[in-house]
Amino acid sequence: MTGKKIGIVMGSDSDLSTMQETLNVLDEFGVNYDVDVISCHRTPQRAHKYAMTAEKKGYKVIIGGAGGSAHLAGVIASMAPVPVIGVPMLTPDLGGLDSLYSIVQMPGGVPVAAVGIGKAGAKNAAILAVQILSTADKTLKKKIIDYKKKQAEKVIQKDKNVKKLLRKSKK
Amino acid sequence: MTGKKIGIVMGSDSDLSTMQETLNVLDEFGVNYDVDVISCHRTPQRAHKYAMTAEKKGYKVIIGGAGGSAHLAGVIASMAPVPVIGVPMLTPDLGGLDSLYSIVQMPGGVPVAAVGIGKAGAKNAAILAVQILSTADKTLKKKIIDYKKKQAEKVIQKDKNVKKLLRKSKK
Amino acid sequence: MTGKKIGIVMGSDSDLSTMQETLNVLDEFGVNYDVDVISCHRTPQRAHKYAMTAEKKGYKVIIGGAGGSAHLAGVIASMAPVPVIGVPMLTPDLGGLDSLYSIVQMPGGVPVAAVGIGKAGAKNAAILAVQILSTADKTLKKKIIDYKKKQAEKVIQKDKNVKKLLRKSKK
Amino acid sequence: MTGKKIGIVMGSDSDLSTMQETLNVLDEFGVNYDVDVISCHRTPQRAHKYAMTAEKKGYKVIIGGAGGSAHLAGVIASMAPVPVIGVPMLTPDLGGLDSLYSIVQMPGGVPVAAVGIGKAGAKNAAILAVQILSTADKTLKKKIIDYKKKQAEKVIQKDKNVKKLLRKSKK
Amino acid sequence: MTGKKIGIVMGSDSDLSTMQETLNVLDEFGVNYDVDVISCHRTPQRAHKYAMTAEKKGYKVIIGGAGGSAHLAGVIASMAPVPVIGVPMLTPDLGGLDSLYSIVQMPGGVPVAAVGIGKAGAKNAAILAVQILSTADKTLKKKIIDYKKKQAEKVIQKDKNVKKLLRKSKK
Amino acid sequence: MTGKKIGIVMGSDSDLSTMQETLNVLDEFGVNYDVDVISCHRTPQRAHKYAMTAEKKGYKVIIGGAGGSAHLAGVIASMAPVPVIGVPMLTPDLGGLDSLYSIVQMPGGVPVAAVGIGKAGAKNAAILAVQILSTADKTLKKKIIDYKKKQAEKVIQKDKNVKKLLRKSKK
Amino acid sequence: MTGKKIGIVMGSDSDLSTMQETLNVLDEFGVNYDVDVISCHRTPQRAHKYAMTAEKKGYKVIIGGAGGSAHLAGVIASMAPVPVIGVPMLTPDLGGLDSLYSIVQMPGGVPVAAVGIGKAGAKNAAILAVQILSTADKTLKKKIIDYKKKQAEKVIQKDKNVKKLLRKSKK
Amino acid sequence: MTGKKIGIVMGSDSDLSTMQETLNVLDEFGVNYDVDVISCHRTPQRAHKYAMTAEKKGYKVIIGGAGGSAHLAGVIASMAPVPVIGVPMLTPDLGGLDSLYSIVQMPGGVPVAAVGIGKAGAKNAAILAVQILSTADKTLKKKIIDYKKKQAEKVIQKDKNVKKLLRKSKK
Repeated sequence: MTGKKIGIVMGSDSDLSTMQETLNVLDEFGVNYDVDVISCHRTPQRAHKYAMTAEKKGYKVIIGGAGGSAHLAGVIASMAPVPVIGVPMLTPDLGGLDSLYSIVQMPGGVPVAAVGIGKAGAKNAAILAVQILSTADKTLKKKIIDYKKKQAEKVIQKDKNVKKLLRKSKK
Repeated sequence: MTGKKIGIVMGSDSDLSTMQETLNVLDEFGVNYDVDVISCHRTPQRAHKYAMTAEKKGYKVIIGGAGGSAHLAGVIASMAPVPVIGVPMLTPDLGGLDSLYSIVQMPGGVPVAAVGIGKAGAKNAAILAVQILSTADKTLKKKIIDYKKKQAEKVIQKDKNVKKLLRKSKK
Repeated sequence: MTGKKIGIVMGSDSDLSTMQETLNVLDEFGVNYDVDVISCHRTPQRAHKYAMTAEKKGYKVIIGGAGGSAHLAGVIASMAPVPVIGVPMLTPDLGGLDSLYSIVQMPGGVPVAAVGIGKAGAKNAAILAVQILSTADKTLKKKIIDYKKKQAEKVIQKDKNVKKLLRKSKK
Repeated sequence: MTGKKIGIVMGSDSDLSTMQETLNVLDEFGVNYDVDVISCHRTPQRAHKYAMTAEKKGYKVIIGGAGGSAHLAGVIASMAPVPVIGVPMLTPDLGGLDSLYSIVQMPGGVPVAAVGIGKAGAKNAAILAVQILSTADKTLKKKIIDYKKKQAEKVIQKDKNVKKLLRKSKK
Repeated sequence: MTGKKIGIVMGSDSDLSTMQETLNVLDEFGVNYDVDVISCHRTPQRAHKYAMTAEKKGYKVIIGGAGGSAHLAGVIASMAPVPVIGVPMLTPDLGGLDSLYSIVQMPGGVPVAAVGIGKAGAKNAAILAVQILSTADKTLKKKIIDYKKKQAEKVIQKDKNVKKLLRKSKK
Repeated sequence: MTGKKIGIVMGSDSDLSTMQETLNVLDEFGVNYDVDVISCHRTPQRAHKYAMTAEKKGYKVIIGGAGGSAHLAGVIASMAPVPVIGVPMLTPDLGGLDSLYSIVQMPGGVPVAAVGIGKAGAKNAAILAVQILSTADKTLKKKIIDYKKKQAEKVIQKDKNVKKLLRKSKK
Repeated sequence: MTGKKIGIVMGSDSDLSTMQETLNVLDEFGVNYDVDVISCHRTPQRAHKYAMTAEKKGYKVIIGGAGGSAHLAGVIASMAPVPVIGVPMLTPDLGGLDSLYSIVQMPGGVPVAAVGIGKAGAKNAAILAVQILSTADKTLKKKIIDYKKKQAEKVIQKDKNVKKLLRKSKK
Repeated sequence: MTGKKIGIVMGSDSDLSTMQETLNVLDEFGVNYDVDVISCHRTPQRAHKYAMTAEKKGYKVIIGGAGGSAHLAGVIASMAPVPVIGVPMLTPDLGGLDSLYSIVQMPGGVPVAAVGIGKAGAKNAAILAVQILSTADKTLKKKIIDYKKKQAEKVIQKDKNVKKLLRKSKK
């Protein structure tokens, strides 16, 4: 089958620089995805249609990034039965707290899985999506375990670099 | 024509005790209205239909009360061309700040008129709606002006009561 | 009649760069307006006079932009019977949260319609004002509906651009 | 001359239980005062008149208590040349943070002296007012110094009580 | 196979009344689960062991509820490769904002899926977990779709009740 | 007598750029003052001595500017019987909210008069100090009234400038 | 030597119910201590003297509990060379955030060790103090290790209780 | 003995520029230390091992710097019996408030000593650590007392500089 596993939606093209983190991780894991710019406020019909057809298109997970009154993930979660992950964008006035509250404080019955504000959150949204897929995909599960190992190795390398740097500066 | 002027929507029946303030003011002004309980998350299709038919039903203004990830007013504002007023409900964890942010921080292009958190906001939503109608209705404009006067008189009466009370307690 | 439909007030000339968003939208809709710089704290008499004569000047809606202890919209709303919209300015210390609280948490009886902080809010204030006028003006109502359509088209175009961009970067 | 030294204004009679702390301290210091309930939003003309005649009535200091969009102190400070102290009321949703921001974040040129939220603030407003009067009144200055001493003695007594209590509970 | 699908951990037995919402939903969906009280701060070794053996025990998803410096979900996510959902407990001082920040602001590379504060979040954690399982389980997917329908019906019933109530109170 | 009327203290020389606003206003009003850099945390003995000798040195009012755990104004207010004004410095992490809370939330019995965060607050501290002195100094009272007038004129001039600017940009 | 190891200060006798948690833990560890009620604002001289004589009295660690503009711990830390732990009291308006900021945001050079808000913090202050003493006291170190074990056992017991409870409710 | 007294851990090499403040102070006091980059989320096993072997390595105090969901200090405190100091990193979205909450709001029984956000906190962590060591080390105690003196002298010098600067600018 040629369908995409993950649907990625963002509220504005200005969110792309943040959401690029999501795309990079999915590329790294070899998980295919679709990207759409859909504003649940400016293109509500498309948001509606997107949510209603999400399953038919084969999306197992949907990732929605939005800022301010960040309703996008919630609106999709209200209609699509699949897990929806929300990425709160950093905002210039409230630091992304408005985005976070709008995404995470969903009423009982309609969950959105919130990740952190901004780029770290966007990266984590992708990993979380892969983890969800990996609950039924042993290859991906193995990749997740490898990813965690590589990630640890990077920190260990940084640890060495910092120690070398400090030794030098002591001399 | 017998249509209602104002559409009032609330996300849950638990919002009724707050939104009752809205109804009381509209009754006082003699402005007729419809009340619907529509959850934009639990009944998204109804929210969608509500917004799409709002104008046909003759609503000049829509008032939406919701709490937490309070998307209701925003979702309606994304589709209906009429002014939408959002009432942020008090929440037990974040004091209604989550509701306020979700309602007021709308993206450029899709306004929601936010009023204060809780009952004072619900009351003000009604007055604001009447003020909007009164931009083209001299009878209502007169009623608004009278309302402001009566309101002032009540404060003046309270002022007298407090002064009397303090005089007594001095003796 | 030659009167202006909308009164725009700002607390300081430093608010102009934000409030310019309001002016641009009103120009786009062809709605005429007056602009005044009135500080409710530094020129209280002028604020008072402005509010008292607002109706006589024919203003159907007043938009007030202010920052910090942002009392301007509230002071005008206390006297003028017309709908008053408040635009909270971004502040360097509290991100505009002080402006937002001062504008939105009005006591029961005296509503101010708050929009979001900063430029998006300023833009939305204008659209909201036009929506209010359009409750009694079919031409404007049509323009609002058109505006929503054009707005959707812009997002659809952005969607195409992002997709093209991503296809390119994949090669 | 028989004029009152301090003008006390509150936005609503519901603020009386908090502002009673102010009255008690002024009574204790033997400083006379007037109390008015004036809503700068519901009775703007009275607020205006109050501010414009404050000096003529002989008020050396004005204390304004208000909650939410707490504009009262700021509105008076915009017109009256005397020092104005603002007492932020506790609010059920935002804990009084809205009142505090509205009172303290005044624009350059128009100060309001903010004290803490609620009853401790109301008490301190009175002491601050007496301190202001005492800059030109030796009797009051002496009373302030005595007040500080008595206050210290009360803490010392509490210290003894706590120590006694703890000794008992150890046995 | 008889293994449980979901692992539920809470930091303290005092979290049970909140996490009961999670259990109720999983019971409703017929998804079996284990419950453990493990404090990542007071029983770090058990938290460590729990995370390291989570997969072997067959948990597809882990739900961790904790309050304050709510590290539990993050600690498990650092070791277990499965999706981890964090439920922020309501706290008496900061309203659960401390719990929310501790859970959601994870560093890039180690996601936790945060849901809302308190009981609504606990309920949503369960639904999200079922949605995750349902990405590879058609029966569960059908149940999720049914759940959404029933949920909508309940709101529709509430809508009728409110309308009936309001009609009565009008008479 | 040659004594200074106002004592100005700041917690660090890095506060000078903010507190310069205070000095400018006092210079403008011709009120003489002393400036000291005293850290209540790093030079507690000096802070103690400063507070104990403040009155003897003839200070009628003390202005203390500090940031973060901004105890300076409170420490002086605990000992000196004169009115103490606190200026909360802008902080890079919490925007000055830490400074504001530390200054304004004083316990009942020991007031500090808080002004706004940063430069506007520093300016207002000076005006408030002059207003306090003017309660017993008719020349200063007149200057305050003149200041308010000039301030209003500046806004009126800005109003003209903005109108001219807008007329130009329309052509 | 008979001196006490720990000095405990609280700003008001109303803090005793919270600080009792500190006393209980120290009693449990058999570490002796003194308790004083000293307000750094109402009894500044005593606070000053306390800090200056703290070392002579043999205090190895000082624990200061205070609320609002919680300067007590900071004032002592400014003079006493020993480690000072600050316990932020819960406040009715800002939830203890004011206390926390006042305690933790100390300027570089004068540390206060902040623990959490309210009773959990008060308890932790005692444990932290014992840990500090235990850096040079093997008996106490052993007690800390035992304490951690017992604490873990309690959680394990709670885990059993919850599991039993849930088994019962399933039947 | 050649062991290091202080263990310093940071969650990422990007924290080094902040934590350098800690190193500088310890160098100044001549207290030796180890530095490790350990992410409690990306290298949980190393964090675990670090905490379990901390005492054996002779660390008397551990300082952990981390940002966002800053669990590092808490995770170490859950296992190591020595005092643990947490340094909250400044974050671009929430200003470090997320780091602070994650570090300071620890459950009763497992204290972390929190210092302020960012560089001032990092500096204070070192001083606090030295103060802890100095409870059993007279040489260090003397150094702390000297440090406080030198610190006071620096402020006194700054005071002179500011006074000189202001005298010049007056001419």
